Amino acid sequence: MYKGIEASRGIGIGSICLIVERDLSFESKHIDDTDAEKARFNSAIDKFKAETAEMAENIRKNIGPKEAEIMEGHLAMINDPTMAGEMTKMIEAGQCAEAAVTAVCDMFIGMFSKMEDDMMRQRASDISDIKISLLKILLGVEDVDISKVAPGTVLVAHDLTPSMTSQIVKENVVGIITEVGGKTSHSAILARALEIPAVLSVPGITELVKDKDTAIVDGTEGDVYINPDGDVVSKYVIKREEFIRAQAELKNFFGKETVTADGDRVELFCNIGTPKDAKKAIECDGEGIGLFRSEFLFMDKPHLPTEDEQFEAYKEAVETMSGKTVIIRTLDIGGDKDIPYLGLEKEENPFLGYRAVRYCLANKDIYKTQLRGLLRASAYGKVKIMVPLVTCVDEVRAVKALVEECKQELKAEGIKYDENIEVGCMVETAAASLIADLLAKEADFFSIGTNDLTQYTMSVDRGNANVAYLYSAFQPAVLRSIKNIIQAGNAAGIPVGMCGEAAADPLMIPLLMSFGLDEYSVNPVLVLTARSIISKWSKAEADALAEKALSLSTEAEVVALLKASAK
Amino acid sequence: MYKGIEASRGIGIGSICLIVERDLSFESKHIDDTDAEKARFNSAIDKFKAETAEMAENIRKNIGPKEAEIMEGHLAMINDPTMAGEMTKMIEAGQCAEAAVTAVCDMFIGMFSKMEDDMMRQRASDISDIKISLLKILLGVEDVDISKVAPGTVLVAHDLTPSMTSQIVKENVVGIITEVGGKTSHSAILARALEIPAVLSVPGITELVKDKDTAIVDGTEGDVYINPDGDVVSKYVIKREEFIRAQAELKNFFGKETVTADGDRVELFCNIGTPKDAKKAIECDGEGIGLFRSEFLFMDKPHLPTEDEQFEAYKEAVETMSGKTVIIRTLDIGGDKDIPYLGLEKEENPFLGYRAVRYCLANKDIYKTQLRGLLRASAYGKVKIMVPLVTCVDEVRAVKALVEECKQELKAEGIKYDENIEVGCMVETAAASLIADLLAKEADFFSIGTNDLTQYTMSVDRGNANVAYLYSAFQPAVLRSIKNIIQAGNAAGIPVGMCGEAAADPLMIPLLMSFGLDEYSVNPVLVLTARSIISKWSKAEADALAEKALSLSTEAEVVALLKASAK
Repeated sequence: MYKGIEASRGIGIGSICLIVERDLSFESKHIDDTDAEKARFNSAIDKFKAETAEMAENIRKNIGPKEAEIMEGHLAMINDPTMAGEMTKMIEAGQCAEAAVTAVCDMFIGMFSKMEDDMMRQRASDISDIKISLLKILLGVEDVDISKVAPGTVLVAHDLTPSMTSQIVKENVVGIITEVGGKTSHSAILARALEIPAVLSVPGITELVKDKDTAIVDGTEGDVYINPDGDVVSKYVIKREEFIRAQAELKNFFGKETVTADGDRVELFCNIGTPKDAKKAIECDGEGIGLFRSEFLFMDKPHLPTEDEQFEAYKEAVETMSGKTVIIRTLDIGGDKDIPYLGLEKEENPFLGYRAVRYCLANKDIYKTQLRGLLRASAYGKVKIMVPLVTCVDEVRAVKALVEECKQELKAEGIKYDENIEVGCMVETAAASLIADLLAKEADFFSIGTNDLTQYTMSVDRGNANVAYLYSAFQPAVLRSIKNIIQAGNAAGIPVGMCGEAAADPLMIPLLMSFGLDEYSVNPVLVLTARSIISKWSKAEADALAEKALSLSTEAEVVALLKASAK
Repeated sequence: MYKGIEASRGIGIGSICLIVERDLSFESKHIDDTDAEKARFNSAIDKFKAETAEMAENIRKNIGPKEAEIMEGHLAMINDPTMAGEMTKMIEAGQCAEAAVTAVCDMFIGMFSKMEDDMMRQRASDISDIKISLLKILLGVEDVDISKVAPGTVLVAHDLTPSMTSQIVKENVVGIITEVGGKTSHSAILARALEIPAVLSVPGITELVKDKDTAIVDGTEGDVYINPDGDVVSKYVIKREEFIRAQAELKNFFGKETVTADGDRVELFCNIGTPKDAKKAIECDGEGIGLFRSEFLFMDKPHLPTEDEQFEAYKEAVETMSGKTVIIRTLDIGGDKDIPYLGLEKEENPFLGYRAVRYCLANKDIYKTQLRGLLRASAYGKVKIMVPLVTCVDEVRAVKALVEECKQELKAEGIKYDENIEVGCMVETAAASLIADLLAKEADFFSIGTNDLTQYTMSVDRGNANVAYLYSAFQPAVLRSIKNIIQAGNAAGIPVGMCGEAAADPLMIPLLMSFGLDEYSVNPVLVLTARSIISKWSKAEADALAEKALSLSTEAEVVALLKASAK
């Protein structure tokens, strides 16, 4: 048994097709006829663009528009004059096209791979894809044609490039194993979209297997078996059946209201990152958007997004949701995110720094541009404004004053907006939790961000592996804090939601139900799971469990109790 | 009026003596007779050592042993073979002694000044002092003799080197103004020890004044007036009288118990950083040590301190306090402190990282060495062990288990220790505050660290100037947290102390009294001030004020109320 990263849930059992890395080595030589070499380079670029556009189209048709964006990103990068320009310069200086492509790509890969930000590191992997594709074209190396594999195939590769993935025929591939990549890599995203079980980052797996070996891929646990004995196979055949049955049962919850076992209605919303994700939320039967992160607008561009650009993005999400609630979180950035044009200083402790509402209130022009964009979008549906990282009442008051200012401006300009737009608080700091009753007097709603709330309550950087053992929403301190917040919101008569990962956790859901949570906001793919769990618990059962859980002193005891009581 | 950093309290009014920087420029020349140059260099080093030792002796006699350590540090640095060795090598390569001293010192200054840690940056300033002294000796430049200034002098200098300070006759110097240096600089430490009002870091002040100008130095507020008009002078003459009277009144509290206006006794302890500071605590009439930071032992050496070294240091403090309580905090370090031999990774958010009890529990050998040292010292007085950065019950249990293990070992080895030694919790995280009732069942005492508690509650790095406006213990969230902690301790019948800066804040003291704080631990120089403030408030008055304060929603309202009610 080999361990890897669980990247796409489910069990796959099948026969291995080992995708051997093609030899892309070349001899670097000095070029005399640089014009001819440039022409060769340019035609490779053209071919790359044509192939990439075709793959994007394939992925869009066979997988989805969101997944096709990966290929569109590659096109955008190669269309950006910087990269191709640098390569051309090197060719003009006498390098061969292969050497120019390698040198320039490696330079960018080196630069991006050192960045702290996931999004930027992902860019390094994009450029590595581009480099490989260009070299293949220049060297005349044909890719393995994955579209031809037999039914029941488990693909094993060092890495799965998007171009390979675009050829996958979902019916024939039952599992994916790679040596590199994490949960947010393109391979993982595409595997999940195709609903193919995948385990990534299994060290040395391409050396350990050969074609036609039997493989079991447990994409839920991250386990891989090669040529297992009969007991293991039969165990996983049963596990596979159970997984498929559970998935099918979940489908019964599609199109249903979200109700507890007592028939009490709660709201089940989705967390999204781009306007296009709203479609995904609808497809997954989300009842609204509980958290729309607005950072993508600021991180995807070399400049601040204009009011119109923001308005269009918010409006797209709002119109997609056609009247359902869309809670948009205002800009939540700080010294740990690399947005060069904002000129943010690198801070000693960025999570305790100049970020989110602190940055926004100190840069009122930037903030008002966003608030005006949000207000304008509110004319097209039900928009709510959510303020991140609140620690004191003054901040909420200041934001509300700015919203009022923007409303007056828009009114004077004759621009439509929702006069009754709600302004709510993310409750994700210890301070906000402690003064939840005071904040509830100022805010129209609460949304608990359990990821940050856990981080700040436990004084644990959620990205720091050395202290990850303390990072748990089941720590007694965090559970008490969540309960306090929900009850303060309930007492003040404002709705309380939760948009952290805990909202979709089967172990956490009965506690949240007992505390009185009104709205659960989850990753779109978890909507049906959450609805199913909620349907299983009555208030009385949830209350009994919560009372027991809160009487315990340690996280381990709490988790053990909840696991033993799970439905 | 000029603004600077208030570095030593009080008001000085007098006539300026401007200390002009001496010209230390030299012409770098190639040396042929390197032996002669080495001899010249070595005799300069010898002279430097002799002068520095003499200054250290002067400071010890006239100011105090702690302050003399600065000069002893210089001696240690020059005795370390690295620095002088590098200089000798350059001379052997043909550089003149002046050039060698400059190059080597500048290299070290550059290295240390870039470090994040205050202590390391202070070292850069030490080496700068050494460089100047050596150049003066080599160039034959005589220092201004500050010991000769007339009574009523205000010293103005770019910087005050320790050698200058060692010559100060306290009776003649009424104020100090410099262009560089902060509250923790040597100039500041020496000025406070001499009780001379000082304002540091006044930009360009040496250019703005001339000898015999009149100057007012307000070391309490950080204000400086040059040639002020009569109104200002008379106002500050009165202010000066008031300050002196208040200081004199404080002296009445020396040797007294710390009691409220109702006659209720509380404990007034001191925060210290080295065993020698314990003397200072006694001199200032502290009733015990509420926080002995043990980091100095780990930061002052190129290796881990041995059990014996630790034992001796703790024992020195314990014996100095002769039976009074000494609460020693176990190692509180993390990725923001530069202790090279620990090999700690630089972390993205060190304040939320692998530090303090987290580090200690993961490095049990290092921790047990400290715990054994503490236990052995407990045979010589009343030692209590305090655990920093607690966030869950498991941590306290784990530390107590280790203490038990150490006790058994010591018992087996026939070594004495206090069988009933108390183990308490720093309560300085949001988590600890939320589960204070659970922790109170495990811990023998609490000590609230308001600096970190404020930082973690407000999610504000206390070193980050951009968000300093949020860093206040008077934030409603922090006040509630403090109240919860104290009341949880009271309810469980364990003593609750406070060792953060808030414990000495005249505005905070009545609130703490109302909440039921048992022990106030303050900087030694603030013992009498705190005792005086405590004596002014009855419980009923404090309760009335606390009730009002806790009914307010913003920090600004709380501070305004407390200022208006201050006694």
